[in-house]
Amino acid sequence: MKEEAQTNESPMTEFIEKKGTWMTFRPDIKVVDCTIRDGGLVNDFYFEDDFVKAIYNACVQAGVDYMEMGYKASKKIFSPSDYGKWKFSDEEDIRRIVGDNNTSLKLSVMADAERTDYHEDILPKNQSVIDMIRVATYLHQIPTALEMIKDAHDKGYETTVNLMAISSVKESEVNEALDILSSSEVDVIYLVDSYGAMYSEEIRDLVAMYLKYARSTGKIIGIHAHNNQQLAYANTIEALIMGCSYLDATVNGLGRGAGNCPLELLLGFLKNPKFHVRPLLECVQENVIKLKQTLNWGYDIPYMLTGQLNMHPRSAIKFMNGNCNSDYTSFYDSLMADD
Amino acid sequence: MKEEAQTNESPMTEFIEKKGTWMTFRPDIKVVDCTIRDGGLVNDFYFEDDFVKAIYNACVQAGVDYMEMGYKASKKIFSPSDYGKWKFSDEEDIRRIVGDNNTSLKLSVMADAERTDYHEDILPKNQSVIDMIRVATYLHQIPTALEMIKDAHDKGYETTVNLMAISSVKESEVNEALDILSSSEVDVIYLVDSYGAMYSEEIRDLVAMYLKYARSTGKIIGIHAHNNQQLAYANTIEALIMGCSYLDATVNGLGRGAGNCPLELLLGFLKNPKFHVRPLLECVQENVIKLKQTLNWGYDIPYMLTGQLNMHPRSAIKFMNGNCNSDYTSFYDSLMADD
Repeated sequence: MKEEAQTNESPMTEFIEKKGTWMTFRPDIKVVDCTIRDGGLVNDFYFEDDFVKAIYNACVQAGVDYMEMGYKASKKIFSPSDYGKWKFSDEEDIRRIVGDNNTSLKLSVMADAERTDYHEDILPKNQSVIDMIRVATYLHQIPTALEMIKDAHDKGYETTVNLMAISSVKESEVNEALDILSSSEVDVIYLVDSYGAMYSEEIRDLVAMYLKYARSTGKIIGIHAHNNQQLAYANTIEALIMGCSYLDATVNGLGRGAGNCPLELLLGFLKNPKFHVRPLLECVQENVIKLKQTLNWGYDIPYMLTGQLNMHPRSAIKFMNGNCNSDYTSFYDSLMADD
Repeated sequence: MKEEAQTNESPMTEFIEKKGTWMTFRPDIKVVDCTIRDGGLVNDFYFEDDFVKAIYNACVQAGVDYMEMGYKASKKIFSPSDYGKWKFSDEEDIRRIVGDNNTSLKLSVMADAERTDYHEDILPKNQSVIDMIRVATYLHQIPTALEMIKDAHDKGYETTVNLMAISSVKESEVNEALDILSSSEVDVIYLVDSYGAMYSEEIRDLVAMYLKYARSTGKIIGIHAHNNQQLAYANTIEALIMGCSYLDATVNGLGRGAGNCPLELLLGFLKNPKFHVRPLLECVQENVIKLKQTLNWGYDIPYMLTGQLNMHPRSAIKFMNGNCNSDYTSFYDSLMADD
């Protein structure tokens, strides 16, 4: 770790500016619930309508800004018979939950670069109840992502781009990607910790780096963290403090592997009076806890190991879903043998 | 929250100095295992000898610097018939586990101010296998704590002072306490987040404040964090980065309520080659996981609520040990009604 801390200002700090104290709130802050979208990675998107409605109602009552309904996956690549509805998030499925969504909660879907038939499956905004398209992309897919951002923007949507797995690519390439993305039509550029590998100092440096590009062209930035090292919430509030505006979280941290930043923790931290924790607590106790009988998510040692090794959590997820899920040394030895 | 971050240097930053990068290690870092001592608060210190030996062996093999065996509680105040051995940590009990402790692991015990017969129960160092006495004190007990520190120091021990519950007292009083303690014989002054109420910015400010006093008289500082808001590990590494040297943790986070900073996470972060994670993983799977069948610890929503409200976790612990431990809204409503 670096211990330079406050005396060692990075060259990027000029982009960080004070916005208030803990007793003020920042109107730029937007909270994005990803419970169904990221949680769908745990159960192949087989959520009952009642569950999705419960999350929706809780988000509305809690004052959450956005709810992500699922992916817009290509039905040419992924068969609808192999997945629940929220892998595809068809307009009629969303409307069955939200009607015309006459609430202050906005809706988003995620569209993976190269795995979305965006020309056909993303309707013009005036025909859709969706408000925001979030384009998820690896670095090598950026040319495709740029086309998708332009398509969604031109159709009338708010847009974000979620640049994935950056902890395993060169800084120079991330810089180049940010330079390109900040010149696109996108509204929000997301810092994504796909592997749950980052800690506070890295978050500070990366937020400063993202802000440098984003502010040069009037973009704002978001954070999507994972809990592999029990740092999803810590990294989210660190990014927030450093100037990040869009904050992803899920109810009870529901999400693939170690899960996400818990929405209830995040709203408890934010001082904006529009947010309310109690509806989330009710949703957890009435709807989410019982999922734990059949679904497996949340921090455990195998996720810690892949996170600290900056690896995709797939091997840890496979291990945790196996029969010997507390034989941690075997898993550790297998990671070391692969090294 | 404050967003000033890197551009807003506190007046204390002169006391923060760069000590390395993440690829170096700092010889000043000492890791203190508190599994039996803090974990004893979960089960009234009724650990079997085999379990204590397993933790001891794991600490030795993992390269941990100190292991805390328990409290040195007064038998006049607490009846030995009401508690397990590690509430009292008698010399013969410790020696039954460690022999003469011919290892590089040092041993500590915690002595609570006003609840320890330190004149009688703490032997001269040359008659004891214990290396370090840790004096835990609330602010109003500091005069007693100072006597205990002097007693332990004069008997030949290393000493720490753990100033508790500072998140609920005035800064001016903490400053005064630090001024007094830094002039005492104590070696290490601990920043203790008794209520699990702190987050990164507070940790940074408090570490700077503690270091200001500590460095003026050649003391060093430590951190003891709790996981009420999933921030025990995050706050521990933040304190470390800011110049904190003694780091408390417990195997699998075992500890009262939401528990502590997990030792395995911490050692995975530290780059000092003397530390080894694998013996801890083995200890967790062989010895700690099975405790979860009868003991209740680790993050849950009631601890989040008391942490965010800066309250002692006792109400949350009582609630979690009751029959309706996922009726979070009732607990939330009871806290709000008390407010």
